Amino acid sequence: MAKKNAFYAQSGGVTAVINASACGVIETARASKKIGKVYAGHNGIIGALREELIDTSKESAKNIAALRHTPSGAFGSCRYKLKSIEENRAEYERLIEVFKAHNIGYFFYNGGGDSADTCLKISQLSQTMGYPIQAIHVPKTVDNDLPITDNCPGFGSVAKYVSVSIKEAGLDIASMCESSTKVFIMEVMGRHAGWIAAAGGLAAQEEGDAPHIILFPEIAFNKEKFLKRVKQCVKKYGFCAIVASEGAQYKDGTFLADAGTTDAFGHKQLGGVAPTLANMVKDELGYKYHWALADYLQRAARHIASATDVEQAYAVGQAAVEMAIDGKNAVMPAIVRGKGKKYTWSISEAPLDQVANVEKMMPRNYISKDGFGISEAGRDYLLPLIQGEDFPPFKNGLPQYAKLKKVMVEKKLKKKFKV
Amino acid sequence: MAKKNAFYAQSGGVTAVINASACGVIETARASKKIGKVYAGHNGIIGALREELIDTSKESAKNIAALRHTPSGAFGSCRYKLKSIEENRAEYERLIEVFKAHNIGYFFYNGGGDSADTCLKISQLSQTMGYPIQAIHVPKTVDNDLPITDNCPGFGSVAKYVSVSIKEAGLDIASMCESSTKVFIMEVMGRHAGWIAAAGGLAAQEEGDAPHIILFPEIAFNKEKFLKRVKQCVKKYGFCAIVASEGAQYKDGTFLADAGTTDAFGHKQLGGVAPTLANMVKDELGYKYHWALADYLQRAARHIASATDVEQAYAVGQAAVEMAIDGKNAVMPAIVRGKGKKYTWSISEAPLDQVANVEKMMPRNYISKDGFGISEAGRDYLLPLIQGEDFPPFKNGLPQYAKLKKVMVEKKLKKKFKV
Repeated sequence: MAKKNAFYAQSGGVTAVINASACGVIETARASKKIGKVYAGHNGIIGALREELIDTSKESAKNIAALRHTPSGAFGSCRYKLKSIEENRAEYERLIEVFKAHNIGYFFYNGGGDSADTCLKISQLSQTMGYPIQAIHVPKTVDNDLPITDNCPGFGSVAKYVSVSIKEAGLDIASMCESSTKVFIMEVMGRHAGWIAAAGGLAAQEEGDAPHIILFPEIAFNKEKFLKRVKQCVKKYGFCAIVASEGAQYKDGTFLADAGTTDAFGHKQLGGVAPTLANMVKDELGYKYHWALADYLQRAARHIASATDVEQAYAVGQAAVEMAIDGKNAVMPAIVRGKGKKYTWSISEAPLDQVANVEKMMPRNYISKDGFGISEAGRDYLLPLIQGEDFPPFKNGLPQYAKLKKVMVEKKLKKKFKV
Repeated sequence: MAKKNAFYAQSGGVTAVINASACGVIETARASKKIGKVYAGHNGIIGALREELIDTSKESAKNIAALRHTPSGAFGSCRYKLKSIEENRAEYERLIEVFKAHNIGYFFYNGGGDSADTCLKISQLSQTMGYPIQAIHVPKTVDNDLPITDNCPGFGSVAKYVSVSIKEAGLDIASMCESSTKVFIMEVMGRHAGWIAAAGGLAAQEEGDAPHIILFPEIAFNKEKFLKRVKQCVKKYGFCAIVASEGAQYKDGTFLADAGTTDAFGHKQLGGVAPTLANMVKDELGYKYHWALADYLQRAARHIASATDVEQAYAVGQAAVEMAIDGKNAVMPAIVRGKGKKYTWSISEAPLDQVANVEKMMPRNYISKDGFGISEAGRDYLLPLIQGEDFPPFKNGLPQYAKLKKVMVEKKLKKKFKV
């Protein structure tokens, strides 16, 4: 009997290292000789529904290896959440048709919390719809909010980007504050959890270093306290550097800035905390301000990725394939932090039903008592995740990122499926 | 007779490599044995007026060497423009008092166009007020708008940051555009000239690469044409990535977004082109959008500095001291581009009266015919400036930047001077 092929897809917001996981999956599957071909979904799960499969066997070993240092989703990702089987049985029937047509027995889904839920549903197809498939979730999310795993691949690199950026901008403001900008606000991602904002705190290594204030979604925003602290910092240090999470909110849950639109998962699309804060500072304190909104730059910044993050991203891809070969289903490789003082990590197996739809919040004790910074416990958790540099190769002044051929697998089904 | 001391000051907006120039000045002065001590102005020229001088001889050779890889202004910079001698003679008299008190015979001023004007006024002090001093201007500005010199130290590194960032963000959007964000706008600096925005164009190496549209201050913004082009890009490539200069403006000179405040030089403080464009896209085309505002991150990003820029920044500092030792006054070391196809450069001497108050605009032929990108001539000019990487040393996951001791020179004047 022909070896079963594998389906691999990238899901949700991409990261600087999700392709390193793809690299881990494809290289390990190739080396195993136990898995046929790895077909990647063109634009994630949408590619499976449309029978748009990229034949990764057509890519050179060199190109696949280059995925390790290439940001974004090389096969395309999507924001598309499968409904439950009861709600949309047709989608699952279609997936089975496609999987059957291409002899797919392994399903690797590279994503965050919502994707873990989809992956869990796929893992139940043998039971629910009689199609034998092993589904393994490959963790990825800059939001760092998946449970069980010590951290989520993608996060460490954003953490490094944010801490390096606020460190550099902090030096800039420090050198100009006597006669110019006194308050700088950098808005970062993190809808419901302040992990990314917290990472900014790593830049503050000595008294007076930026950032002086971090605004977390976990700590209710209090305008009066905030402005008082800003004023104190300007008096004491000459300037005030702030990292603000896009999810910063008032006590009643109202976001400081709400763009008013929602994405496919129903999440509110945010943006605008920094200018909101800047206006407060201007109106109430009259300081000259500047602000930055890192947006996609922060999660795409492969040039300043964390080497630890790259290694872990590769390792979860590799482990996912090993678990599949071991006959596992409905699991996710999770990163386990070693016990000693020196940071060590290994990969374990997490049951997917304990991952899906569970959001890991940041422990309160990672935040300083006053709510404006990180605690030592927070620093101890975060610091290992930004360790090491893994610069991509450069050519002619620019990083050289993989350009895949993306050869599509010939379609076998006559029926089209509208997504 | 005791050797004359030197005064060095950083002026205006800082850059990723202005400290490399400081390093060039101090190391060359130390090695020459012909210059006494180098006193750095604490917060630029304000430090001279207040008699707040940092004794750089108290810094270790290692610390001075570390300036080469440290962003921002290590001695503090300022936005403070001296008035003309007729308008404020007291300022010049004060400077002479301070210079005399500290046996200062050399004045090195590290800044852009406005600072070149100040430096020129200082160079005339022997003539106008009978105090012998040699004033040399050390070029620096991310705006790249100084005349004569091929480019301005500081610019190459911003250029590299902007091109790397839009390349990375472009890959991100490309991988998500099927079901999510279709338009991305990155706002960059550049008040009156589109040099920085133009640098984004280097990221587009093949048909379809980001950025698809660049908005320059030099090209009158036409909403209809812009939206038409956005729509075309989304249809053709699936997404549209835009680099917009903060100075983008309508035909009548109105900026797309104007924060309404001005700095000490009377320049309007801008910000908000990206959200303005995003709203247009949303209202007229209905595409999902994201935008980023790099702000200070772009000019502080020493971690992704151009090695060419670092070398040139050091070289102009070094040359400034050599010119001073040669007895020169009222000059500026300028970068001269070699004639051959391969990029080469050397340092020449530019008369300061030809530099001060002259703004170099970007030649129209550096912009593509349709006004939305760079031409081959533009690419030929820009590409050499981002060549090479010069990563700072990292420790514990973060760049290790110099922390100076900043030992202040004992004040000798009784009179205080209010700045």
